[in-house]
Amino acid sequence: MANSLRIAVDAMGGDLGPRTTVSALLDFLNSHRQVHALVFGDQTQVGEQLSLSPYKDPTLLSRIEVRHSDSHVIDSDKPSAVIRHKRDSSMGLALQALAAGEAQAFISAGNTGAIMALGLYFVKALPGISRPAICTTVPTISGRSYVLDLGANPVCSAAQLYEFALLGALTASELESIESPSVRLLNVGEESNKGRDDIQQAAALLEADTEINYCGYIEGNGIFQGGTDVIVCDGFAGNVALKTSEGLATMVGARFREAVGRGWLARLALLLLRGPLLKLKVQLDPALYNGAYFLGLNGVVVKSHGSATQTAFVRALEVATAAAEHNLPDVLSPILKHKLNQPG
Amino acid sequence: MANSLRIAVDAMGGDLGPRTTVSALLDFLNSHRQVHALVFGDQTQVGEQLSLSPYKDPTLLSRIEVRHSDSHVIDSDKPSAVIRHKRDSSMGLALQALAAGEAQAFISAGNTGAIMALGLYFVKALPGISRPAICTTVPTISGRSYVLDLGANPVCSAAQLYEFALLGALTASELESIESPSVRLLNVGEESNKGRDDIQQAAALLEADTEINYCGYIEGNGIFQGGTDVIVCDGFAGNVALKTSEGLATMVGARFREAVGRGWLARLALLLLRGPLLKLKVQLDPALYNGAYFLGLNGVVVKSHGSATQTAFVRALEVATAAAEHNLPDVLSPILKHKLNQPG
Repeated sequence: MANSLRIAVDAMGGDLGPRTTVSALLDFLNSHRQVHALVFGDQTQVGEQLSLSPYKDPTLLSRIEVRHSDSHVIDSDKPSAVIRHKRDSSMGLALQALAAGEAQAFISAGNTGAIMALGLYFVKALPGISRPAICTTVPTISGRSYVLDLGANPVCSAAQLYEFALLGALTASELESIESPSVRLLNVGEESNKGRDDIQQAAALLEADTEINYCGYIEGNGIFQGGTDVIVCDGFAGNVALKTSEGLATMVGARFREAVGRGWLARLALLLLRGPLLKLKVQLDPALYNGAYFLGLNGVVVKSHGSATQTAFVRALEVATAAAEHNLPDVLSPILKHKLNQPG
Repeated sequence: MANSLRIAVDAMGGDLGPRTTVSALLDFLNSHRQVHALVFGDQTQVGEQLSLSPYKDPTLLSRIEVRHSDSHVIDSDKPSAVIRHKRDSSMGLALQALAAGEAQAFISAGNTGAIMALGLYFVKALPGISRPAICTTVPTISGRSYVLDLGANPVCSAAQLYEFALLGALTASELESIESPSVRLLNVGEESNKGRDDIQQAAALLEADTEINYCGYIEGNGIFQGGTDVIVCDGFAGNVALKTSEGLATMVGARFREAVGRGWLARLALLLLRGPLLKLKVQLDPALYNGAYFLGLNGVVVKSHGSATQTAFVRALEVATAAAEHNLPDVLSPILKHKLNQPG
């Protein structure tokens, strides 16, 4: 599908830094021969991980260019401080490379607020977009759905929710080849008079736009039901929904292990169920849903979970690459310019 | 623990009306000999269900008094219309009986907004409480937690969140005999500068109250982790969190059944796991968490899920009875009057 493309990697983000990000990058490049990487971070730490490469492919290391940075963003850094003092951190330099066209995608497992701030600073927003939204896909009974915003904007206006709906619909249409993606607003009821004023106003904006396939409200229990391509909410609700789901899965897993115990009958039963359970794991493993887009930036910016495993970081690299192969921002830009009536 | 007490039942609420509520009430009264019931609804429909009673206990039917109502609230009724035109519905009459002291608890599986409106109209709010909150318990890894608000107040001020925290803490303390219940505010991060302004202001109010054991923010993934007795949020976030959890459980269940299939190996394995899976079901069955309090009303008002099964409605009756046995509103009232500086 794609010719050679280059991805800018902030190697220092995430709980284990280069030990996860660089190892995952090697795995990824080994199976994606058309991709090159610009790796930003502490050159000693990055170099150590590169020297541990298990791959014999001689082209692999030649497809990686390491660029040293003296500083990196940490989780407790405030976005405003990062903009003042850490523009040349590994994250900042990687975003500068993206903005300059040296790379077609950016990835980091680091501080979300800092990615947003530096992204807006260097990469800028797409035409007409007031604030980017974090967007990921979630598994449903019948497939997967795009959900945004997941935490970048705890409070949103109706106009912003409308922008998110537009960004989500255009992205699902481009990346999943869905002709007219169905869009719903997350609310506390399905009747039109339910919920907050901002959501009711966003619904009116979406109903008025005949190019968006707006299908009404969806409640929390509908998120995983399938049948909706794009689910739109403010960042507070989105973050609560996704994190609560993670927590529930963890709790049920813990209670399941406790209930099943370690007796031989239980072990035998689990052995018999090994195939189906593995299949289920492959379908629902959070690692497979790692990699969230910052939709609305004028470049492919992808965030990995900070505690992502190597496998999960590989998945986020795939997400970034797919969006870059589709030239997502270039596809979105003229449509947004037209629809949101931006000059220029 | 309790002497005779009387519960006012809106028999017409819920998807199946008296077919669920009256059948469940018979089950409940059969195992709770100290409880009497005032049943409000269509006397023909209620009578039909009573005539199907499987119980031989001669005192059982004598503990039930049916009071006919010509109208009942339906799900699409708006609260404002209910206040104008349906004050003498089964729901309204049952709440009037509670307000008059004829019953010590009220239960309905009907329209939540209508229960809130009629509850405020007839039963009134406790001193200093601006709006009641819906509160239920959820299972956690280590036990259970109280969560409020679950949807009565989609938008809340900091002062309201503080009131909810107080109501939740006092309730957990009284019903669970926890000396100093831990309280957290739901937010999109754990650092003190995270999230919305209203939540940060509520945190300041809670930190200033030395009688509340406020322990900081909690994220969605912490809800089911245990270790927090009371989790406070606005009704929008609470509704999204709980309903998303329900939806995830349904989705995983569907995917699990699909993955496991119907082969004989799978059946054998499930048979071997029958004991532990039943144990898990008993721990996590949503039916066991049915029954939400309207905390902040000057009376025990409990809402059952509209689609509750007979077993689930029995559970909600138990929730209502336990709160009535503790005289919950009478316990809360003087403390709230003192803390929220209400005259009278």
